[in-house]
Amino acid sequence: MIDSLIPLFKPRSVAVIGASRQAGTIGNEILRNLLRCGFQGVVYPVNPHAHAVHAVRASPSVLDLPEPVDLAVVAVPAARVIEVARQCAQAGVKAMVVISAGFKEAGEQGARLEEELTTIARDAGIRIVGPNCLGVINASDEVRLDATFAPTFPTPGRVGFLTQSGALGVAILDTGEALGLGLSTFVSIGNKADVSANDMLEYWEEDPDTALILLYLESFGNPRKFSRIARRVAARKPIIAVKSGRSASGRRAATSHTGALAGVDVAADALFWQTGVIRVDTMEELFNTALLLAHQPVPRGRRVAVLTNAGGPGILAADACEAQGLTLPQLSEHTRARLSAFLPPEASVRNPVDMIASASPEAFERAVRILLEDDDIDSLIAIFVPPIVTRAQEVAEAIKAGASGSHKTILCNFLGSHGVPESLRSLQAASIPSFTFPETAAITLGRAARYGEWLSRPSGAPADLPGIDADAAAQTIQRALAGASEGAAGLWLSPDEIAEVLGAYGIRQARQRTASTADEAASAASHIGFPVALKLISQTLTHKTDVGGVRLGLRTPEEVWDAFAGMARRLEVAGHHGAMQGVLVQEMVPEGVEIIAGASLDPALGMLLMVGLGGVHAEIFKDVAVRVHPLEDIDASEMIAGLRAAPLLKGYRGAPPADTGALAELLLRLDRLISDHPQIVDLDLNPLKVLHEGQGVVAVDARIRVQPTEAQRFG
Amino acid sequence: MIDSLIPLFKPRSVAVIGASRQAGTIGNEILRNLLRCGFQGVVYPVNPHAHAVHAVRASPSVLDLPEPVDLAVVAVPAARVIEVARQCAQAGVKAMVVISAGFKEAGEQGARLEEELTTIARDAGIRIVGPNCLGVINASDEVRLDATFAPTFPTPGRVGFLTQSGALGVAILDTGEALGLGLSTFVSIGNKADVSANDMLEYWEEDPDTALILLYLESFGNPRKFSRIARRVAARKPIIAVKSGRSASGRRAATSHTGALAGVDVAADALFWQTGVIRVDTMEELFNTALLLAHQPVPRGRRVAVLTNAGGPGILAADACEAQGLTLPQLSEHTRARLSAFLPPEASVRNPVDMIASASPEAFERAVRILLEDDDIDSLIAIFVPPIVTRAQEVAEAIKAGASGSHKTILCNFLGSHGVPESLRSLQAASIPSFTFPETAAITLGRAARYGEWLSRPSGAPADLPGIDADAAAQTIQRALAGASEGAAGLWLSPDEIAEVLGAYGIRQARQRTASTADEAASAASHIGFPVALKLISQTLTHKTDVGGVRLGLRTPEEVWDAFAGMARRLEVAGHHGAMQGVLVQEMVPEGVEIIAGASLDPALGMLLMVGLGGVHAEIFKDVAVRVHPLEDIDASEMIAGLRAAPLLKGYRGAPPADTGALAELLLRLDRLISDHPQIVDLDLNPLKVLHEGQGVVAVDARIRVQPTEAQRFG
Repeated sequence: MIDSLIPLFKPRSVAVIGASRQAGTIGNEILRNLLRCGFQGVVYPVNPHAHAVHAVRASPSVLDLPEPVDLAVVAVPAARVIEVARQCAQAGVKAMVVISAGFKEAGEQGARLEEELTTIARDAGIRIVGPNCLGVINASDEVRLDATFAPTFPTPGRVGFLTQSGALGVAILDTGEALGLGLSTFVSIGNKADVSANDMLEYWEEDPDTALILLYLESFGNPRKFSRIARRVAARKPIIAVKSGRSASGRRAATSHTGALAGVDVAADALFWQTGVIRVDTMEELFNTALLLAHQPVPRGRRVAVLTNAGGPGILAADACEAQGLTLPQLSEHTRARLSAFLPPEASVRNPVDMIASASPEAFERAVRILLEDDDIDSLIAIFVPPIVTRAQEVAEAIKAGASGSHKTILCNFLGSHGVPESLRSLQAASIPSFTFPETAAITLGRAARYGEWLSRPSGAPADLPGIDADAAAQTIQRALAGASEGAAGLWLSPDEIAEVLGAYGIRQARQRTASTADEAASAASHIGFPVALKLISQTLTHKTDVGGVRLGLRTPEEVWDAFAGMARRLEVAGHHGAMQGVLVQEMVPEGVEIIAGASLDPALGMLLMVGLGGVHAEIFKDVAVRVHPLEDIDASEMIAGLRAAPLLKGYRGAPPADTGALAELLLRLDRLISDHPQIVDLDLNPLKVLHEGQGVVAVDARIRVQPTEAQRFG
Repeated sequence: MIDSLIPLFKPRSVAVIGASRQAGTIGNEILRNLLRCGFQGVVYPVNPHAHAVHAVRASPSVLDLPEPVDLAVVAVPAARVIEVARQCAQAGVKAMVVISAGFKEAGEQGARLEEELTTIARDAGIRIVGPNCLGVINASDEVRLDATFAPTFPTPGRVGFLTQSGALGVAILDTGEALGLGLSTFVSIGNKADVSANDMLEYWEEDPDTALILLYLESFGNPRKFSRIARRVAARKPIIAVKSGRSASGRRAATSHTGALAGVDVAADALFWQTGVIRVDTMEELFNTALLLAHQPVPRGRRVAVLTNAGGPGILAADACEAQGLTLPQLSEHTRARLSAFLPPEASVRNPVDMIASASPEAFERAVRILLEDDDIDSLIAIFVPPIVTRAQEVAEAIKAGASGSHKTILCNFLGSHGVPESLRSLQAASIPSFTFPETAAITLGRAARYGEWLSRPSGAPADLPGIDADAAAQTIQRALAGASEGAAGLWLSPDEIAEVLGAYGIRQARQRTASTADEAASAASHIGFPVALKLISQTLTHKTDVGGVRLGLRTPEEVWDAFAGMARRLEVAGHHGAMQGVLVQEMVPEGVEIIAGASLDPALGMLLMVGLGGVHAEIFKDVAVRVHPLEDIDASEMIAGLRAAPLLKGYRGAPPADTGALAELLLRLDRLISDHPQIVDLDLNPLKVLHEGQGVVAVDARIRVQPTEAQRFG
């Protein structure tokens, strides 16, 4: 799989099909880039109408080349690409980069062309990047391949960059170069007819030149596969991503732009967190976070020291740190004493450490070393504001010297200096990035620290869930679907079917039956077991309690009979004739916290699981945690802990704590249920009562929708 | 008041006291800056030990100058400043900029020095900037005053910049210059011994050279005055502020740094919003927002068009716009038709408008003009990504041409270009700023649009509140305080006193009395009027409902007697001997939404008013709106509308709407109450029931704390 990408990124020979003599055309620029970037292999221009392009002898077709080439870069009009692909197949080409536009992004006819292209390539074993892309780069000195028409060839480095937008690619290469962010590999994947982000993650996972992966994504192709691969890769190499199309109009544009499906943003957030991908909001943050992680170790925790020679910027950094969830611990007695030993009395040795304007380069070096040696500190932000006599370069060298030998994270704010200035660069040790403003340094560190936390969280595992009878549930679902009419879009299971399915997965549901007479109600209650509750069923009356429509704790058939009759009588007396369609007779569920839990199908990301606070406040405060299926065990407890209403479950204001363990297990059982039965596309437990600790959870009401086919499902 | 600042910013003559011959000292740099910046007046070095400094004849003291000077810039050690100030007073100096450090920021002794300095200056009518500051600049061509030791003299422009941190000032001047942000005036106010941010706002309000005001603040001196002045100035000129010290550690540093009081961040947010000050989170946002508002009109609304020649950046801009609360409306049929008339079929004429890579400068010009002419569009973000043949300059000129004549807001994203590039500069019309990334443009526009909304909201007015008897309340409060022991830190009013005070301000409270026997309860109920509720008073039992400790809707003295007796008996039977300390007999309050409202004293910002959702969810979701006293009428309704729980008040899920009008009036009555009686430092109505529309609000429980003196109060 990954080996098949070698001809793309480390070809020994490249043909440029559509190499043009006309300056300013794509076919002309690509050939020029390939010739001038220092490529270690051979480049062959292909052009039936030219003897030579850029002074290199051209061949009329890929079939006329003196040797079979590894890679063909194609820049001919879309209509000619199929013919070219056939020739490439015949000529034994191993990989193609199709620059040409006019495929899926351009409508139905283009989509058909793209399908044809993919078929030809698959049959011939050719890997394709594109179509509709900027191309690929391998900046490593052993290769030096520039198969793009971008003006910038990057400085070699350790960053792999993937973009789903070719236009943005030009800016990415530009900006990366300006910031001193070296690249290993760059790929513009265009329409993703073949090579996807998932493929690239697997390639970079093994690529020794790449230590850090950057993604600009507009859509997920196969989210379940992405989840599996990204989780594995992120544990070894940081992945930083911008996922655009968050907003309604952004998605509208993304759809028109790449034909990709709209993504649900909250779910995408969840997917990134679950897989350890660092999601950033803007391209600027993407570059900033990359600058830090390309040069410095991942922070081991959230504890930051701020060192400054000026108060104002120190405060700004402290504010921004805390806004990011980082902490500025009080420094230890020992550290304070060491700092006080050489700092003037006007300096502050609290955190932030303000050495005041008179701080010498030597003071910076000593303070950096002392702070990095403090066991209560995970990272250091060093801020230098030029006082009257500017010695920025000396201070930079001093900071570098103070940090040498430390394995902690250090970053700088030399006001006005963005990137890695020469004086902070190091060949022996890690270079130190600088950010323009103190807040930028803090925000960037926050992103990295969050990733550090993900790295150090206990690795999740599939849960051990006893007492599941998958076959019984399968039979119920098949029976329900068999009874449904052909082509049904979906089918809501009956209460009995729901009881069977949930029962087969060990999910407790409140026993309940409907009754339309007092006799039926009494007999239903006997069947359910006492005590029971009686709840009015009425199309017209919404506030059931107000009209005496709820009776709790009924202990005998007689009490049930009386309650039914009394309820009916009272409604009639109050003038609500015909308002009563019957009653729900329900097992009395003990007191507990009302929760909603469920699963639903997202068109872009597959099945999502959610849990949230129940009742009116759930809707108002939208306090819901979402994860993408499948869950690891740790995901379930993180979902619960992540609710703002989590304190309610922990025993708020002296109330007994609720059974959060059982709630977490329930989420894992739901996850298993939708995993075993992909026909389930919608599942709601609402309300779900979380009882006191040790007493479990009970679904008071449940709905399940199933679909006859898996057509809409991924994975 | 403002005239007294003229000698500071437009002096005819300046003495530099402490002018030094030694390079690298502050006194040397300041004189050099003054001499080389093109100052239109006369500069006199003062140095008792030098014949000349920077080749200008020096005088031994300010008393020996050939003429009285307007401004003295002081850079001598703190210990000598008092003597210098006395000489300045004697010599008729009108204003001083005291650069020297070692005052309030350095401890008690420094604070005493600073007080002495202030007294001398006040007695002599001298205005002081500083001490402990970087100095002041007037960049206007008519003045050209650089009384700082910063290396950069700014290009003249329309921006007034104030910083409370001198060190940050150096960076501010640097960054502003790099971005092409011209300054009118710069002032580093240091310890604010005299000239404060409030003074500067009033100066800039009238200064014809200043159209936009930027503030870096670490504390508010006099928040009530700030509120009054900023509100007035912001209606004429945009004010953009970074207020640092948001976080606990940031405040720790801010306190140590300037001796300023800690600010409550939420309250500071409220103060800025009430006064129309654009609060930004970071220095970067400060500069970005300034770049936009220095060159472009304030957006008239939230409706944005995005124009791009590349899909990816357009999507990023759209996402960021919506995250800022901006909208991308669908373009009108007419606009789409006009665009389609010249764009290729592959282009998208939805919003974002994607002209694709082939877009010519002419296409940019036409599209910009068409979009700005659309009545449904308030602002335009134009994005240009260089395609293969880079023509950035031509495109910039085209965008400028397309925008000429329009009074709408337009900003650009030329990838990698931050500031106002030459090609977007205009002498005739407004220049167009460019931001490095599309998201930055969107975020900046969002800030400006929010200010536009503040500008266009109906201007608030003091509320008309009938039926207030301020004297009655004053008597009650005085009586309570008279009875208190001397030096009491504060005193909680008794239930009867609370009833009197709230009654005098037309605030309805549920009538209630405590009773310790059944007879007392029955008699209390008769006094209150039926029906009543009985609520157990118990130190030991918290869940009153569980033990039958709440009885509602009692209609006769007999029912009250029975309920008391039954409650007592039931507790005894259940083994809760001695758990009952009595009952609260309370008027039955009709159904309503439970709310908390109140006021409390913030040490930095004075009295704050708050309103929030009641009950457990209030604590968990912290759904509270805060404003700084005094309120205008519009503030009260904005507070209520700003609650996330606002839908609950509007008639959620078919419930009748609550009386939000009465709730708004209640907030204004509270505001009046604390305004009339500054002894009130704490006031809580919790819970407060908002009844159905037209039925008002009722405080079910209330607490009021008063203080004998006004020592802790501002204003």
